[in-house]
Amino acid sequence: MASAENPVETGRNGRSGVQAEVYELKRERILEAAAELFAERGYNGTSMAAIADSLGATKPFVYYHFKDKHEILRETSRRGVVRAHAALDEVLGGGGSCVEQLDQACRALAEVTLANRAYAIVYSREMDRLSDEARAELAELRRSFDRRLGELIAEGCRRGEFQVDQPRVTATCISTMIIYSYGWFRDGGVLSAEQVAAHLALLARRMLGCEGAQG
Amino acid sequence: MASAENPVETGRNGRSGVQAEVYELKRERILEAAAELFAERGYNGTSMAAIADSLGATKPFVYYHFKDKHEILRETSRRGVVRAHAALDEVLGGGGSCVEQLDQACRALAEVTLANRAYAIVYSREMDRLSDEARAELAELRRSFDRRLGELIAEGCRRGEFQVDQPRVTATCISTMIIYSYGWFRDGGVLSAEQVAAHLALLARRMLGCEGAQG
Repeated sequence: MASAENPVETGRNGRSGVQAEVYELKRERILEAAAELFAERGYNGTSMAAIADSLGATKPFVYYHFKDKHEILRETSRRGVVRAHAALDEVLGGGGSCVEQLDQACRALAEVTLANRAYAIVYSREMDRLSDEARAELAELRRSFDRRLGELIAEGCRRGEFQVDQPRVTATCISTMIIYSYGWFRDGGVLSAEQVAAHLALLARRMLGCEGAQG
Repeated sequence: MASAENPVETGRNGRSGVQAEVYELKRERILEAAAELFAERGYNGTSMAAIADSLGATKPFVYYHFKDKHEILRETSRRGVVRAHAALDEVLGGGGSCVEQLDQACRALAEVTLANRAYAIVYSREMDRLSDEARAELAELRRSFDRRLGELIAEGCRRGEFQVDQPRVTATCISTMIIYSYGWFRDGGVLSAEQVAAHLALLARRMLGCEGAQG
């Protein structure tokens, strides 16, 4: 479901029902394969043929789903933040106290981030290869995520659930801490993704001066 | 002063006294100019001639101080983290409670980061252009910074000043939050660099469950 600030994942191109689902699934697989290759060999080092190969498919298959390599880069770069907005939509629509919503939002952001690390790596490294328009759209999507999180924090302050100055800057500090966990998290490390998400959510609650965030 | 874990800024090449100082100053200016250009035009888009031009100097001047463009990239990339280690040396050598040392370390890291934003931008974008050896050295410098911060947090936990699980992971969460402030901080924004540093230090104290970190 799309909110005013959350664009849906694009590309259905008027298809509906099973057709749309299959089309989306194929796009999804192409993006996953491309993100892995971009993360491994860089955008310049990855050809459309290599993306097709890694899926056991043909170049026309890839071109049927994406106009060109830049569109693939743009979509891989959007993936993480679009999903973060979707997760936030769900949390904010679910009701509950601000503390609860903040906790769920932080866990969801961490889980989305850690499940989509290749996308985050590609975005951070290949930002310069995006068109100005694509880069501006992404920057705005990131800002609007922090703005929405900042509004939740400000609301929690008004209700006396949080005690913190600078809700908007604090929101950015929290989302920064969570999003860049993709850089240090390792599969098979001391903590699982779920444990990291829980720890990040605890740290965020504490940053907001929540009562009872000592455990 | 160099600690076991903190390499000094390199390049004196046996010079001493005023000569060494002048040589260092010139290297410093070259690195600053190069970092600005790399951040603006990218590493590939910046020639040694352009670096010389921006200083009103000649290419031989630049080559007298650096072997090649890669050495400049390596040094610009090292700059931020080497200074962060130096700031931590000073804090840890200064004594005081763990709370005080942590507070000073966070402020110092934020100040170093915000005063050296071009270096951070270059490192994050051009990482792939570093040699494997240079990249490994930098990754190790970052890890050892977090390890040292983690040891301070663990010591604070033993003394009852902090209440937090996972001191090492928490140290990384704190340094991540602080270092990536280079991405959102703007000169002339709502908060000055000093105010951002103070806010980040407060958030870090709270993350550690410090008594009296509610103000």
